[in-house]
Amino acid sequence: MDRVRTSIATVCLSGTLEDKLPAIAAAGFDGLEVFEPDFVSSPWSAEELARRAADLGLSLDLYQPFRDVDSVDPEEFARNLVRAERKFDVMERLGCDTLLVCSSTLPQAVRADDRLAEQLAVLADAAHRRGLRIAYEALAWGAHVNTYRHSWRVVEAADHPALGVCLDSFHILSRGDDPSGIRDIPGEKIFFLQLADAPAMSMDVLQWSRHYRNFPGQGSFDLAGFGAHVEAAGYRGPWSLEIFNDTFRGSDTGRTAADAHRSLRYLEAEVSRRVRAEAAPPPRDDRRARLFDAPSASPLEGVVSLRLAAGPGKSDALRTVLGRLGFRLAGVHRAHDLQLWRHGGLTVVVDASAGTVWTAPGLPAHLPVLTQIGVRSSDPESWEERARAFEVRAREVGLPGAEGASTPERGSASDVVRLDMTDATSLDVRGPASAAAWEAAFELYPGERGWEDDVSLFTGVDHVGLAIPADNWDGVMLLLRSVLAMTPREGLDVTDAVGMLRNRALERPAPDGGPGALRLTLSMVPGSVSSHLGAARRGGIGHVAFACTDIFTTAASMRARGFEPLPIPANYYDDLDARFGLSRELLDRMADSGILYDADSDGEFFHLFTPTVGADFFFEVVQRVGGYRGYGDANAAVRLAAQLRAT
Amino acid sequence: MDRVRTSIATVCLSGTLEDKLPAIAAAGFDGLEVFEPDFVSSPWSAEELARRAADLGLSLDLYQPFRDVDSVDPEEFARNLVRAERKFDVMERLGCDTLLVCSSTLPQAVRADDRLAEQLAVLADAAHRRGLRIAYEALAWGAHVNTYRHSWRVVEAADHPALGVCLDSFHILSRGDDPSGIRDIPGEKIFFLQLADAPAMSMDVLQWSRHYRNFPGQGSFDLAGFGAHVEAAGYRGPWSLEIFNDTFRGSDTGRTAADAHRSLRYLEAEVSRRVRAEAAPPPRDDRRARLFDAPSASPLEGVVSLRLAAGPGKSDALRTVLGRLGFRLAGVHRAHDLQLWRHGGLTVVVDASAGTVWTAPGLPAHLPVLTQIGVRSSDPESWEERARAFEVRAREVGLPGAEGASTPERGSASDVVRLDMTDATSLDVRGPASAAAWEAAFELYPGERGWEDDVSLFTGVDHVGLAIPADNWDGVMLLLRSVLAMTPREGLDVTDAVGMLRNRALERPAPDGGPGALRLTLSMVPGSVSSHLGAARRGGIGHVAFACTDIFTTAASMRARGFEPLPIPANYYDDLDARFGLSRELLDRMADSGILYDADSDGEFFHLFTPTVGADFFFEVVQRVGGYRGYGDANAAVRLAAQLRAT
Repeated sequence: MDRVRTSIATVCLSGTLEDKLPAIAAAGFDGLEVFEPDFVSSPWSAEELARRAADLGLSLDLYQPFRDVDSVDPEEFARNLVRAERKFDVMERLGCDTLLVCSSTLPQAVRADDRLAEQLAVLADAAHRRGLRIAYEALAWGAHVNTYRHSWRVVEAADHPALGVCLDSFHILSRGDDPSGIRDIPGEKIFFLQLADAPAMSMDVLQWSRHYRNFPGQGSFDLAGFGAHVEAAGYRGPWSLEIFNDTFRGSDTGRTAADAHRSLRYLEAEVSRRVRAEAAPPPRDDRRARLFDAPSASPLEGVVSLRLAAGPGKSDALRTVLGRLGFRLAGVHRAHDLQLWRHGGLTVVVDASAGTVWTAPGLPAHLPVLTQIGVRSSDPESWEERARAFEVRAREVGLPGAEGASTPERGSASDVVRLDMTDATSLDVRGPASAAAWEAAFELYPGERGWEDDVSLFTGVDHVGLAIPADNWDGVMLLLRSVLAMTPREGLDVTDAVGMLRNRALERPAPDGGPGALRLTLSMVPGSVSSHLGAARRGGIGHVAFACTDIFTTAASMRARGFEPLPIPANYYDDLDARFGLSRELLDRMADSGILYDADSDGEFFHLFTPTVGADFFFEVVQRVGGYRGYGDANAAVRLAAQLRAT
Repeated sequence: MDRVRTSIATVCLSGTLEDKLPAIAAAGFDGLEVFEPDFVSSPWSAEELARRAADLGLSLDLYQPFRDVDSVDPEEFARNLVRAERKFDVMERLGCDTLLVCSSTLPQAVRADDRLAEQLAVLADAAHRRGLRIAYEALAWGAHVNTYRHSWRVVEAADHPALGVCLDSFHILSRGDDPSGIRDIPGEKIFFLQLADAPAMSMDVLQWSRHYRNFPGQGSFDLAGFGAHVEAAGYRGPWSLEIFNDTFRGSDTGRTAADAHRSLRYLEAEVSRRVRAEAAPPPRDDRRARLFDAPSASPLEGVVSLRLAAGPGKSDALRTVLGRLGFRLAGVHRAHDLQLWRHGGLTVVVDASAGTVWTAPGLPAHLPVLTQIGVRSSDPESWEERARAFEVRAREVGLPGAEGASTPERGSASDVVRLDMTDATSLDVRGPASAAAWEAAFELYPGERGWEDDVSLFTGVDHVGLAIPADNWDGVMLLLRSVLAMTPREGLDVTDAVGMLRNRALERPAPDGGPGALRLTLSMVPGSVSSHLGAARRGGIGHVAFACTDIFTTAASMRARGFEPLPIPANYYDDLDARFGLSRELLDRMADSGILYDADSDGEFFHLFTPTVGADFFFEVVQRVGGYRGYGDANAAVRLAAQLRAT
């Protein structure tokens, strides 16, 4: 079976070639593109680079970029050919046979297609004499040639065996071009394929390209559709990543390389789905077989448990809030400083031990931190398999308290598979036997064993908010979209008292097509570590929102337990009055309980907040009315200011 | 004399109103714009806010924004009037008489100008009944009204005493509109003036406006020309800042407010210059008198001294490099661990003491750090006065070693005025008597007192590179442009092995019109503190470049002293060959001495580097040939990779 070969441009990664090559090999790539500035600044000779790559089992698939070859000035074109010969020298020494030539961006670019085809044929002939070939790429900002159709017209006209096109998804999709015409290009004339995703942005395409590209599955392009066209054209060369991203270039090399390879696995699976959907019955040629398919896993059935690391310092405050929210202490762990809190079908484990406190390296932790989200599913092992297919670490974990051990206790039958979503928080897929297994580790209070509440203030967890450091944002996005098949909603930036908060919600629909079985709201923490969590983003991030069907009743019940809602200013309700014209009576009732309000065309949203526990964590209670799909982001600035004041 | 009143929108600053009001007052503003979300999220009632502002001597100049008032749907317009009445209620309680109304961005915006004028007149009438007035502003992205000319046409047509226009420099200049038509608007119909600068960016204007505005003197707009038009129109209301900037909203409130007020002083001085240039003889009305003029100061005559904090750990390495560059140890300080190094007309003081090490709060310092740049000038006191006029701290300093004392020694006649350019580095303006005064503090070696080299490898300092934390970038830019009258060159981003480096050069021409008397290259350090200096930006920032007239001779002389240049890869010279077609002999000579090359249409540039001393600091030697104006940025990635390898 002829599997898709994977490749990556060295420009995607941080560091020098000494760092990049081993990381590329370790991530599982088959080859790489030599980005010229990396080579020019390297002390390795061409032969040395070739040897190092070969030792790592990596092929050198492309040398790039060669710019502005054509010219209306024949003398300049002649000089450019000499320049190309010098690069052919290097390629021969590297053993790399394909040169990427970009369409010219200069005023002296050739504008007559026949003349351009002639010049490219001359260049291709020079390459051909050396056993090399030219992949011609239309830059989205090329002076004359800036669409793939145009580059193909010129290549077709040149009609030279050593001249083909290079297709780059960014240059095509960033312009909004229709990629379906790729099917009309003979596969063997597509000499190279570069893949890049990018977030939706309204900005100059050159700046967008140079700074904000990201890996497939991290942005907004329809790369699955793009890939299906390329497959249909019959292209059989490597799928290669060419990503210019400021954050990636400052991030850990190995982690970025692993994300990169995962992104190609994800894209393969998506393209495979698209190809299958196109062809019924499935295509009989090799198109299907070479593409990776992700194994499916058992449906997720909602969040049932949470674990919070509070440490000795924050556990009292956390317990107080849990109690006022209606949770009761159901038991304590037999060996560790863990408390089991319950309400309705929900379990919260409070970790008060000092040892399991989550800390970023060298920095104080800001507790509490949500370390586990438990979701119910019938077959956790199917999730282990799916995660592995996407090159994500997942493993069955032992009983609570032992799960920190370096060797997972395979025989302990916890029926829980753990997937690391972020550096701080795991998703625990919990099978039918998990509750009983976990209960066994706790000393439960009388009546608690096997007991299930039949009344609850909450119908479940509406959503969970997580703080993601900027340099891991795209990595988490890819993981959630690939392994968990979550769908990102439109991003929203919230301006608050202490800066700008980048937010993004991701949702995974429930099996019954109802409200999301898993909804996450991610907030970006500036910088590469969590050092800002405390000082700069107090009250901004990290929360659990419980769902209810009548927020006024729920609030009253909580108040009866001593709950004090986050105080919301009277000015807010005056403004609500001006904006929505709600009845004075409703406004007064909301103000009494610190309830905030939003509405969209489909419904209404009521929510209230706890003050923060510690600096960074809080609970929310929400009621959705009708088909409201948002998260009340319009109220975020008011909440944040109130939380800043309350702490 | 009727001075310009200064005002600022609360949205410009970080924090809540409790933080913002005192900072606004302390910075010297006369009033403020109440940004509605700040008020809505405040626990202060309108009366309380009014009282607090009055206590601080601040007027409430504007309530903003009120959006999307007009509508083709009469019922919606009626609802919007009700919404406006609720805001009038608030304004009455605040004692704020002007409401900012933005042109509508909605599909249902009124497109017929006469109809729109009618609706605005109805709104103005409602305001008028309360003694309030409406300032109508054209948003650059308004659905129908998006130019100031259009907003004025509609306001003129409405012809209502309580309706005028608000002019916002961003909305006008971001579109590239010609602002000269402002002169045709009667000054009394300009109800408000909002001022914002912005860096040149090719991006969606809404995103640009919401995230990247900055204060006058920090961006690229011709605000002096804009202000001159507004003056000519006869506007006499406050000059107010409305800046949406993510960085400012996360930065220190007091510091941002001080920068903000300085930016208005700077703009006043620039507008005043423009108005004077327009009118010869000077205008006789009050236009000139009300504008601030900055006192001029004595010319700067080149960098003559540097001071580096090396601490006990890095001073040996620094001394070794200085010696190889041709500097000699000329003496030691009588009381402190300071060494005086000399070469030609240049002095370098190496501070080896532990006590004066520069550290960001709570973080390890990355030494060496350039702490002072000494420039010669005939009248340092004139700089003290000029700095004070721009609200920048400058003071005469005592003799070296005592200058860290909290009380400057006024009587010590050092003839040096110190201006803090950045948190790390001061500019010391050194008068004619300063050299002798400073010499006195040192135990000089025999023959060094009063001695001057008549030969030198270097003709002076070509430029100095400084690292600026991101959250102080705009502040430093404003200070250099205002007090030092430096001119920024086009910015350049350098992609290197470890990320993206934002660079900007600023130049102050020499009195004789020759090469720059002071050239600074600034590099932005990500984040708000210098924590990244070491790990993330090794070799990237902080350097002193000496100028010479023959780099090959200079390099040979340095090598004779044991200097080893930073090793530059052979691949680099192969690439130079391909790009510039230099002679093999020249390439070999450059390679021998680690010399890099660049050229532009006006000349050539040769430069070489030392390996870094410590993690972050290095020296450069440069030779400019012809009129080359750059800094060899094309070679930055090669240099950075080599420095990463060499340390």
